[in-house]
Amino acid sequence: MSKNFRSRFFEDYVLGETIRHSVPRTVTSGDVSLYLATTGSRFAINYSQEFSRDLGFKATLVDDILVFHLVFGRTVPDLSLNAIANLGYADVRFLNPVYIGDTINSTSKIVGLKENSNGKTGTVYVHSEGRNQKGELILSYYRWLMMRKKNLDEHLDDKTIPEMPSKVEKKDMKFFENINLKKWNTSFTGSENLFEDYDVGEEIDHLDGQTIEESEHQMATRLYQNNARVHFNQHVEKDGRFGKRIIYGGYIISLARAISCNGLSNTIKLAAIHSGKHSSPTFSGDTIYAWSKILEKENYNNDVGIMRIRTLASKNCNKITFPDEKSLTENIVLDLNYSVFIPKRI
Amino acid sequence: MSKNFRSRFFEDYVLGETIRHSVPRTVTSGDVSLYLATTGSRFAINYSQEFSRDLGFKATLVDDILVFHLVFGRTVPDLSLNAIANLGYADVRFLNPVYIGDTINSTSKIVGLKENSNGKTGTVYVHSEGRNQKGELILSYYRWLMMRKKNLDEHLDDKTIPEMPSKVEKKDMKFFENINLKKWNTSFTGSENLFEDYDVGEEIDHLDGQTIEESEHQMATRLYQNNARVHFNQHVEKDGRFGKRIIYGGYIISLARAISCNGLSNTIKLAAIHSGKHSSPTFSGDTIYAWSKILEKENYNNDVGIMRIRTLASKNCNKITFPDEKSLTENIVLDLNYSVFIPKRI
Amino acid sequence: MSKNFRSRFFEDYVLGETIRHSVPRTVTSGDVSLYLATTGSRFAINYSQEFSRDLGFKATLVDDILVFHLVFGRTVPDLSLNAIANLGYADVRFLNPVYIGDTINSTSKIVGLKENSNGKTGTVYVHSEGRNQKGELILSYYRWLMMRKKNLDEHLDDKTIPEMPSKVEKKDMKFFENINLKKWNTSFTGSENLFEDYDVGEEIDHLDGQTIEESEHQMATRLYQNNARVHFNQHVEKDGRFGKRIIYGGYIISLARAISCNGLSNTIKLAAIHSGKHSSPTFSGDTIYAWSKILEKENYNNDVGIMRIRTLASKNCNKITFPDEKSLTENIVLDLNYSVFIPKRI
Repeated sequence: MSKNFRSRFFEDYVLGETIRHSVPRTVTSGDVSLYLATTGSRFAINYSQEFSRDLGFKATLVDDILVFHLVFGRTVPDLSLNAIANLGYADVRFLNPVYIGDTINSTSKIVGLKENSNGKTGTVYVHSEGRNQKGELILSYYRWLMMRKKNLDEHLDDKTIPEMPSKVEKKDMKFFENINLKKWNTSFTGSENLFEDYDVGEEIDHLDGQTIEESEHQMATRLYQNNARVHFNQHVEKDGRFGKRIIYGGYIISLARAISCNGLSNTIKLAAIHSGKHSSPTFSGDTIYAWSKILEKENYNNDVGIMRIRTLASKNCNKITFPDEKSLTENIVLDLNYSVFIPKRI
Repeated sequence: MSKNFRSRFFEDYVLGETIRHSVPRTVTSGDVSLYLATTGSRFAINYSQEFSRDLGFKATLVDDILVFHLVFGRTVPDLSLNAIANLGYADVRFLNPVYIGDTINSTSKIVGLKENSNGKTGTVYVHSEGRNQKGELILSYYRWLMMRKKNLDEHLDDKTIPEMPSKVEKKDMKFFENINLKKWNTSFTGSENLFEDYDVGEEIDHLDGQTIEESEHQMATRLYQNNARVHFNQHVEKDGRFGKRIIYGGYIISLARAISCNGLSNTIKLAAIHSGKHSSPTFSGDTIYAWSKILEKENYNNDVGIMRIRTLASKNCNKITFPDEKSLTENIVLDLNYSVFIPKRI
Repeated sequence: MSKNFRSRFFEDYVLGETIRHSVPRTVTSGDVSLYLATTGSRFAINYSQEFSRDLGFKATLVDDILVFHLVFGRTVPDLSLNAIANLGYADVRFLNPVYIGDTINSTSKIVGLKENSNGKTGTVYVHSEGRNQKGELILSYYRWLMMRKKNLDEHLDDKTIPEMPSKVEKKDMKFFENINLKKWNTSFTGSENLFEDYDVGEEIDHLDGQTIEESEHQMATRLYQNNARVHFNQHVEKDGRFGKRIIYGGYIISLARAISCNGLSNTIKLAAIHSGKHSSPTFSGDTIYAWSKILEKENYNNDVGIMRIRTLASKNCNKITFPDEKSLTENIVLDLNYSVFIPKRI
């Protein structure tokens, strides 16, 4: 039997099957330093052990998007290696906190299968979960991908498309337990702007541009053990669709989130990602900018509010308006709709 | 109110004000690995927990220049984002030791203000301090910057220029307490040359050249959370003064110090930086070399001496003489005047 | 006396001398993250504290090839700076385990000296050892290098060439003690293929190609404190033999081993490297691929077997056959003959 792992094709997925992804991953302070070095994040709570402990966390809290990449990275060999396209994700929930020292495992359940009308490809719907070493759920999300078929003569007649919420509801969001937000220190975060200070409809220009370098991207993406080939192999990609290696879409989410700290630095935790669109590819040499618009505000409890935000990232363009979702220009590389927790004024 | 932080202009600084800089930063072993990976440092004490502990340190001692960058990085959003130029620094004192696991906070007091004769800019003088999580002073220095004015019609008539020593005196230097220098191990440092072995006037060619890569520099500078825009945004800098991103001057200090280990490997600690001049800018692709000249030797106590050193760094030029400070050629990128502690022969 | 260290020439080595190399090095989680980020390794045991602990290790086990680089890196200033060529290595034994937190020291004994017939160079044979902070042997190997002579008029008449085994014997290999292989978890490693599943003569295409970037290589090689000049100084190398910086041969071993995880992911530990040949140089921009052939299978004990493997790495070429050692094409950059421990089916 062939010893190398060539991953799966459309026909290899079975409805209802749960795939336990390999290579459990302990998050270390080295990972956090590299995440910082490749994104420029300034969210104070993720880089100060004292700030995390003051609030009641048992150790330094790990950045939500780094957690997302580590959970997602585990799934790549089983889900993405033969994928033609990542079509979307939904219902991304950030649940229990992750600390330096925790070990992350991922599983994916096949929740939908649909052959495409061309008969050559199919769509696979998965529900993926990340858990820590105690088995606590830290992240869950739906994702759907377009996969190649092995056998063009056999067809799947039944189609199953899972119901996925277009928006994560408040009841499905989870803030930290036993945290003392009286210790939330705005001199640490660098901004006095709390829940009450934002208006629905308000737009924020996050100002900074970050130019992507091939090696920073490769190192970041390897750190997550995301080994999708389009990111690492110039010998093949030189003859590919773009003639060059493609930047992992999640790296753009990281840059946009890091850049958005200038304007959103008190957003303590991501609650959910409702939807996200990588509307154009990015490459080494592109410079990423970000803007946010407050879409909705909601009470969570006495101490904390939820803000739903749309963040756009552009490449090589530092002036944008907020187009509707269907009129995105080719300079827009990311359109992210998500919710964050942010302390209220006490 | 605008949520993004556009930093300050000349008029926004108030004499006597103390700015508490945001984002306290825990130094981790990840930071130390990245510092090593981006500089090539070989100072044994910073990379061996055993060596640090043998001498009586409670954990691995962190490189002084990394500490400088972390303290300095905190100050950038409040001081440097709108600065036209970093004019100089003085009286840099390296005080209490920093260990892996310590958390660094920075504050700056506005100690001088002077409008420039063109009426368009002003000079801001700050005294910055870095402290650990216990409030112990780890670093202090003066720095002065040229800032843009917002309002060209209003003028500051009074000028206040602080008194800054041209040289840090021995009484203001601080060596480590309760350290057993009998355990100083020259087989670890790779050199038998101690305090007694150096002559005033002696010149040392540190030999190695290090070629700067854009991503190494960006990763190092992000690690310090120094977010000055000229270092990261090619989309803007392509139309700027040099057509490219500028290397952070402090990165050149790191490279010069790392390269100088070959000849100064027993210099256990920086005592002070008396003055430093970034005499030319550096860019990705430049190769950095370094030379040192012993300017002065002084007794500190029975175990330790102080050497005052001038270190020059060049780009793309591996032969230099030691010109006087006013005759620096354009290949000289750094002229650093500083003092180090070095064990005596026991 | 000159304070900088210009390393040794042929005449400076004394038969029987033991050189204690400088800069003991504590392995940290930061090093492990950077190793992962620059190689893309997926060997589960090195990145999961839980998996290491389940098996009975006291902390996360460090990748064998990273250990090799750290031991080797210490020896570079004393052995390689004036070397013209690294001629070979033999009898590489991976002995006691290395954990995050251990401190590595290296020594080399001069075991052979031979002047070459041109009278201008000589060959130095060393036996190098790496030990942890307790003095336990973690790695040992023979290596021989071509060195420049200082004085072409003096000659060494006697020649001493050590006996070096062409192959490490089973009795000289060492598996881990007190490890519970019942806890070996193939859902963690991502493959069910254990000792019994491989056939002698079987060939494995490891599929993935990794494109080398200058900064990733420089950061990795600095991490090992390997400061051989050909890797870091473009200002000199632009006029050198290749017009560019040369990639450290050990980095190719790392990439080949990391890539080979796809097909060999249950190979828990390297037992030995019998021989290795860097048959062509590699440069930034090259894409590395790897193939393995099972040469021999041997019983170690009831739980573990030994497989001897030949791994070839190519640059910019994703189709190869297995040529005999003398017919290597210029696209082959590494020909490695080594043995690994792999659990048996229980």
